[in-house]
Amino acid sequence: MKYCSACGHFLVEYIPKNDHLVRHVCDHCGTIHYQNPLVVTGCIPIDGDRVLLCKRAIEPHAGKWTLPAGFLENGESVMQGAVRELKEEACAQAIDAQFYAMYDLPHIHQVHIFYRCHLDINYGVNPGIESTDVQWFRLQEIPWNELAFQSVRQALIDYSADRDQQSFSVHTHCISH
Amino acid sequence: MKYCSACGHFLVEYIPKNDHLVRHVCDHCGTIHYQNPLVVTGCIPIDGDRVLLCKRAIEPHAGKWTLPAGFLENGESVMQGAVRELKEEACAQAIDAQFYAMYDLPHIHQVHIFYRCHLDINYGVNPGIESTDVQWFRLQEIPWNELAFQSVRQALIDYSADRDQQSFSVHTHCISH
Repeated sequence: MKYCSACGHFLVEYIPKNDHLVRHVCDHCGTIHYQNPLVVTGCIPIDGDRVLLCKRAIEPHAGKWTLPAGFLENGESVMQGAVRELKEEACAQAIDAQFYAMYDLPHIHQVHIFYRCHLDINYGVNPGIESTDVQWFRLQEIPWNELAFQSVRQALIDYSADRDQQSFSVHTHCISH
Repeated sequence: MKYCSACGHFLVEYIPKNDHLVRHVCDHCGTIHYQNPLVVTGCIPIDGDRVLLCKRAIEPHAGKWTLPAGFLENGESVMQGAVRELKEEACAQAIDAQFYAMYDLPHIHQVHIFYRCHLDINYGVNPGIESTDVQWFRLQEIPWNELAFQSVRQALIDYSADRDQQSFSVHTHCISH
């Protein structure tokens, strides 16, 4: 961030009055340009003892498996974002989406939120533009060494443990590596 | 957003290839400037049947009561942000913070997250720079008509109902007005 997005002048960096962190500030128009964490939202699509994973067509981690997830957009709820990502990446329609987990990833300035859901059987399951494949995996057959993201791994660990105990609660973890 | 923060050129607005939303794009350096929701994180400080509220010293809603909360910063977990906000606004130290609620506010592009917590009795409770007063309120005495934000109202409604039933669960709501 070098230039003011409001007026185009060079930015400078300092701690503004009544603040405690260094910000990018425009001394020409006075705008303070805050940089804050992003929310990633996704689904854990479930069918009996199976979960749906998508093989990533794009970087980062092309070729690895992931739960359908992506950045929350302005104007949508976190659940709506998760449902949209499922549609985009697996051409599937979520039903019964339930808040399941929130994971902090402070080292990459992200918060990842997952909903467990079932799929509307009137829709198929097909790779979307960001996927080369979508497959149902039994929990015993999850490709643990081929997962794209730490948060996806944690969601599948939490879900597998809950499923073993037939007791589902909301999970939070700080994933700082 | 008019100018590219990376190179300073004028931005144009269109839907980039493989995207589905209009973005601010720099045709000079190729940067796509996404705009995404912000996370607000806060505490519900509890002492028996009382909750701690702060009287806002600043706009918006100066003079109204709020739970200590503010924007999540890069590099901190959502819980760390909530604990920091409590320190900044009420000069208090949280202990036993537990994830309590996530509220969507899609119309203002925000997600509000609250932790219920107790306070370390070795620290006092005093107004921080953004507060003119901090007070413990019994749940029956919450100033419902003088609350600053819808999400604070919802958090206090959810907490009061849970307290009545002596059963605390995680809450989610979409607050779209």
